[in-house]
Amino acid sequence: MTLRVTFLGTAGAVPTTERNPSGVHVNRDGDGLLFDVGEGTQRQMMRYGTGFDISNVFITHFHGDHVFGLPGLLETWDFNGRESPITIHTPTHTRSDIAALVTACDSDPTYPVHIREVAPGEIALEHEDYAVTAVRTNHRTRSVGYALVETDRRGRFNREKAEELGVPVGPKFSRLHEGHPIELEDGTVVDPEQVVGPPRPGRTMVYSGDTQPVDSIVEAAEGADLLIHDATFGDEYEARAAETGHSTARQAGEIAARAGVSKLVLTHISSRYAGDATPLAAQAREAFNGSVVIAHDGLELDVPYRD
Amino acid sequence: MTLRVTFLGTAGAVPTTERNPSGVHVNRDGDGLLFDVGEGTQRQMMRYGTGFDISNVFITHFHGDHVFGLPGLLETWDFNGRESPITIHTPTHTRSDIAALVTACDSDPTYPVHIREVAPGEIALEHEDYAVTAVRTNHRTRSVGYALVETDRRGRFNREKAEELGVPVGPKFSRLHEGHPIELEDGTVVDPEQVVGPPRPGRTMVYSGDTQPVDSIVEAAEGADLLIHDATFGDEYEARAAETGHSTARQAGEIAARAGVSKLVLTHISSRYAGDATPLAAQAREAFNGSVVIAHDGLELDVPYRD
Repeated sequence: MTLRVTFLGTAGAVPTTERNPSGVHVNRDGDGLLFDVGEGTQRQMMRYGTGFDISNVFITHFHGDHVFGLPGLLETWDFNGRESPITIHTPTHTRSDIAALVTACDSDPTYPVHIREVAPGEIALEHEDYAVTAVRTNHRTRSVGYALVETDRRGRFNREKAEELGVPVGPKFSRLHEGHPIELEDGTVVDPEQVVGPPRPGRTMVYSGDTQPVDSIVEAAEGADLLIHDATFGDEYEARAAETGHSTARQAGEIAARAGVSKLVLTHISSRYAGDATPLAAQAREAFNGSVVIAHDGLELDVPYRD
Repeated sequence: MTLRVTFLGTAGAVPTTERNPSGVHVNRDGDGLLFDVGEGTQRQMMRYGTGFDISNVFITHFHGDHVFGLPGLLETWDFNGRESPITIHTPTHTRSDIAALVTACDSDPTYPVHIREVAPGEIALEHEDYAVTAVRTNHRTRSVGYALVETDRRGRFNREKAEELGVPVGPKFSRLHEGHPIELEDGTVVDPEQVVGPPRPGRTMVYSGDTQPVDSIVEAAEGADLLIHDATFGDEYEARAAETGHSTARQAGEIAARAGVSKLVLTHISSRYAGDATPLAAQAREAFNGSVVIAHDGLELDVPYRD
């Protein structure tokens, strides 16, 4: 199953020639999910070839650099004759703000637009194979992060053991793997536990949106495969980060270390680091010895299974 | 005096990887003027180095592809501590639409934002050296184009003739050029008409915004140095152009020919021509034998004086 993350915009509040305002595209086995829609997101989607087949949009908070690309994207869908509904998930008490942006499109969309408020801890999207849950954050405004958590996959099927027990190769293998006991011709019953290992975890990715360091992200990201975290500032602006409800790269590293994630991607990089953002990665690495990447526009990551 | 036009966005309603939604920057001797502000305009300004020192914004009509870059640009000015006021000129009855976009910035701008409605024929901006006037257009919504018309320059000073008449080189030359008679040492009076030619015209540029072909643009652009005209479609979509309130490239050429302009720039190019827009130029050239250019993002034109 594909779990591909494409960074559409990695700038802080003010974009640069290299960084568009915030946007993260996730392709989960063909489902297009969009997290934040900064100004210019639609052209970034064209540029980086994500496609326009998006079913759900997840807004972390109503600041311009995270939402001003929404009306243009909705309008382009309209021009292109979109018919399928779109659901926009947004923090509680921001529905009317989002609605104002939706109707800023003078045109009346040809497709249904649903706006759905989500509170921290609430499941925004429930899918057979995964769920997206809102996570409490602290950005001095109504805000959430989002955790995409895949359901467990079936345990590994021990083919050798099954053959040893006399299970004939064929449909009985599938029945067992699906969790049903089967009966052999001699009447022996084989239980799935005999040949199927414990369920294997799916993948987890967490997107913090803009936030100060918070325990709730550590909890949501515990053992996650990928944590995409606010790293607006370097050490020298730690006070400013606190004032503005952001994190430093080092703090993002500390969160990643506490959560024990596999990979940390630093994003929402202040325009102060337009010349060179590598010090941010170095500071995060001092706090976290897993993989650290500074996001750049167009960065594409395939999240692998742990086993 | 500089009159430099930088094309920030040249797309039709739907942008492409090559073309941003509409935006034209004009640098008139250091005055920064912005005509339409499609989504992504602020990054185009960075990319093409126009600078952010804009005093006046001119909106042709309230369609998303001409205005959705406004809130982000206003917010970036705010982040950068702008203090000088900005005036946004917009067609009559669109003030509240624009105001809604301005306040879509949750933040309260640190600088005054004035919204000023302009009717066709009305002067939007009056400057010592030039004026910007709204021009009637027809885009099936409240819309205007804009004409920037420089005031006449002084006539050419005939230095040879002045010396012949015995005027001493020095401040008397300037007095005469400024239109004042002077007295020589022998009591002879020299009138400015004797040494200064007739006033020479300033430059004129007209931006149509989105419109069907209209006589009012011909009138405003009569003898203009530059006409930037809607050329959304090619001949094959003439009916569609009429339905949607746009022009074909050929119709833009016809307007340019009737107005007798020096140069025609085709813009608002439909995404249909993303592969190759050259047929549009060819069609315009069949109707107009002056200079025809298809705008592209980043195109920079210095408008020369006619003499």
